Amino acid sequence: MFENSNESRTSLSEYGEFGLIDHLTRNFGVTPENTIKGIGDDAAVLDFKDEKVVVTTDFLVEGVHFDLAYMPLKHLGYKAVMVNLSDLYAMNAKARQITISIAVSNRFPVEALEELYSGIELAAKLYKVDVVGGDTTSSNSGMVISVTALGAAKEEEVVYRSGAKENDLLVVTGDLGAAYMGLQVLEREKQVFKVNPNSQPDLDPYTYLIERQLKPEARQDIPPLFKALDLQPTSMIDISDGLSSETIHLCKNSGTGVNLFEEKIPLDPAVISVCEEFQLDSTTIALSGGEDYELLFTIDQKDYDKIKGNPNFTVIGHMTQQSEGMHLVTRANQKIELIARGWNAMDNKD
Amino acid sequence: MFENSNESRTSLSEYGEFGLIDHLTRNFGVTPENTIKGIGDDAAVLDFKDEKVVVTTDFLVEGVHFDLAYMPLKHLGYKAVMVNLSDLYAMNAKARQITISIAVSNRFPVEALEELYSGIELAAKLYKVDVVGGDTTSSNSGMVISVTALGAAKEEEVVYRSGAKENDLLVVTGDLGAAYMGLQVLEREKQVFKVNPNSQPDLDPYTYLIERQLKPEARQDIPPLFKALDLQPTSMIDISDGLSSETIHLCKNSGTGVNLFEEKIPLDPAVISVCEEFQLDSTTIALSGGEDYELLFTIDQKDYDKIKGNPNFTVIGHMTQQSEGMHLVTRANQKIELIARGWNAMDNKD
Repeated sequence: MFENSNESRTSLSEYGEFGLIDHLTRNFGVTPENTIKGIGDDAAVLDFKDEKVVVTTDFLVEGVHFDLAYMPLKHLGYKAVMVNLSDLYAMNAKARQITISIAVSNRFPVEALEELYSGIELAAKLYKVDVVGGDTTSSNSGMVISVTALGAAKEEEVVYRSGAKENDLLVVTGDLGAAYMGLQVLEREKQVFKVNPNSQPDLDPYTYLIERQLKPEARQDIPPLFKALDLQPTSMIDISDGLSSETIHLCKNSGTGVNLFEEKIPLDPAVISVCEEFQLDSTTIALSGGEDYELLFTIDQKDYDKIKGNPNFTVIGHMTQQSEGMHLVTRANQKIELIARGWNAMDNKD
Repeated sequence: MFENSNESRTSLSEYGEFGLIDHLTRNFGVTPENTIKGIGDDAAVLDFKDEKVVVTTDFLVEGVHFDLAYMPLKHLGYKAVMVNLSDLYAMNAKARQITISIAVSNRFPVEALEELYSGIELAAKLYKVDVVGGDTTSSNSGMVISVTALGAAKEEEVVYRSGAKENDLLVVTGDLGAAYMGLQVLEREKQVFKVNPNSQPDLDPYTYLIERQLKPEARQDIPPLFKALDLQPTSMIDISDGLSSETIHLCKNSGTGVNLFEEKIPLDPAVISVCEEFQLDSTTIALSGGEDYELLFTIDQKDYDKIKGNPNFTVIGHMTQQSEGMHLVTRANQKIELIARGWNAMDNKD
C-alpha cells in the first residue's frame, strides 16, 4: 500500500487545459445500444428506450470517506463506482452509465490519476457500464470524487424503500461487518507503520476483511436473480451505513416496525475471530459497521419458498405494526430498541 | 455581499445524521410527468418516454471556481445549476432534472447551506427542473459542489460539436465578455474592502457586468426558438471558457477551420467602457473571458434567412476548410491565429 513512490511523475500541468480528461478517458468506449454519445461533447446522449431511468449520485471526500495512507488509488476508483452501482441495484435496476468528476491538488502526478482511472475502468468493464462524462479540476486541498450512476428498470420492477408491510420477512444478502473490521485492521497497520516503517505485517489472516473494505463488490447479481426467482421484493435498500440504520430507513419509509433477530445476522467466521481479537462485539459491528454494500429487502411471507435454502439470502427478521416499534431481539430473547449508529457522523445517503 | 454576519447560526451537527438533506430539500417537489420518484430513496426514478436522455456534470470548487468573499451563497447555488443547464441547452435539449452534492466544512452553519439551497431552488423553479437527488457531506477544507443535470431531446434534434461544415456560418447568442469584467470589478472591490472595510462602493455603473458574473442565466429560450424557426444548427457548444477556445472546440470536433471577424463580436456598451477603465482590450476579453453561458453554433448558409435580423443572434464568422486554419480577422483586416486562452488553467469542460 506504500508502493510506487519511486516511479516517474508527470505534472498535471503538462497536459494543458483540455488534454487531461481526454488522456484519462481514452480507453472508455461505449455500448452502442445504451449510449449514443459518451465523453466529448457538452453532454452525453443516452438511450433507455421504453425503460425508466434510475439515477443516483455520491461524493467521496479524502479524509472523510477514504484515507490514501492505506487506500490504493486503483481501489479507490473501483470503490467509488461500486458505492453508486449499489444504489441502483437497491432499486432493482440494471446499471448502464456513470459520470465521474474528480478534484485534486497539484500534489498528485498524472500517474496517480491514471491509477485511479484504471480502477474506474476495471469496475466499468466488470459491471458493464459506460463512463459517459465527467470533470477533472484542481482543488486547493484534498481529493474529492463525485460519481453519478444511471440505470434502467421497468416501472413495475422498481423497488422502493417504502413498500414493506406488516409480517413481511426482512432478508439480507451475503454477510455483514467484514468491511468495517477490514478498516480496523488497516487502521492498526497504519499506526504500526508510523512507529516502524520497516515492519512487514502478515495480513494473510485478514485477506477477506481487507478485500471487503478496499475492493467491495456491489450485488449486480441480485436483480437478475430476483427475476429468475419471479420474486418482487416489497422494499429494498443497500447497506452502506450499517444494518441498523438501513433497517430503520425501511421501517420509517414503509410505516412499519421490525423485529430483527441477533442470532440470524450472517457473519463470516473471519469477522467473529477478528472481533474477538479487537475485543469488539460482532453484533454491534454488523449493526453499525457499514460499507458492506449488501442488499437489505423485505418480501411477502408467501414468497418465502422462493428464497428458502438459497445461499445468497438470510432471513433476519420480520416487519411489525409501526406501533410495536423497531427492536433487536437478542440471543437472550431480550428486546432492545434499534438505533441508528452509522459511523460517518454527518454523511447523508441516498 | 458581506451581510448576514450577525444572524443566528445553527451548527451542522444539530441536524443529526440524515436530517440535514431532508431539511434542505423539503421544498423540492417533482413534476409527475418527468419524475416518478425524486429525493428519498437509493436513487431517483425518471420518465423520459420516447425521448433520449442527455446528461452532464460539473464540479465547482471553492478557491478555483468561486470566491465566497464576493459570491453570495444564494447566487452560488443559482450559478451551479446554470453552469450545468447551459450544457444541456448546448445539446439542443430540454432540461428535466438535476442532482446536487455538496461537501462543506463545519465552519458553515446550516443557515449558509439554506442560502445556497434557496438559490438552487430558485433556479430549479425558474428553469422548470426537478431536484431529484444529492449528497451532503463534510469536508476538511473548502466547499465543493457537484451538479449533474439530465435533459431530454429527440434523437434527430440533438446538436453535437462535430457537425459543422465548410462555409457554415458561425453564430453566437447575446453578448460576450460581461461576466469576466464583472469578476474584475468584484476583485477590485475585494481589494478596496481589505484596505478599508468601511468604504461604500458605488457599483451602479457595473450592475449588468456583476449580474452576468454572479447570476448568469443559461439560454433555455434558444432550443424552443430553434424549433419555432425550424432551424437545426449543424454544431453547438456553450461559452463557458471563452469564445476563442469554444470556437476551437467546434473546429477540432468538426474537422474545419474558421474565420472569426473581430468587428462582429457582440459587446455590451458597459463592457467597452469598463475595458477602457481597466485598460484591457475588449476583443481579448470576449475571446478569453468565459462564463458568459451564451451559445455558439453553426448553421448552413441556406438557413441564414431564418436568423437574419433576430436580436438574439449575431453572425461572427464562417467555417473554412481545415487546412486553412483557425483565424481571427482583425478590424485592420489582419489574420491572426486563434489560440485557446481559457482562464481556468487546469479545468476541463464537458
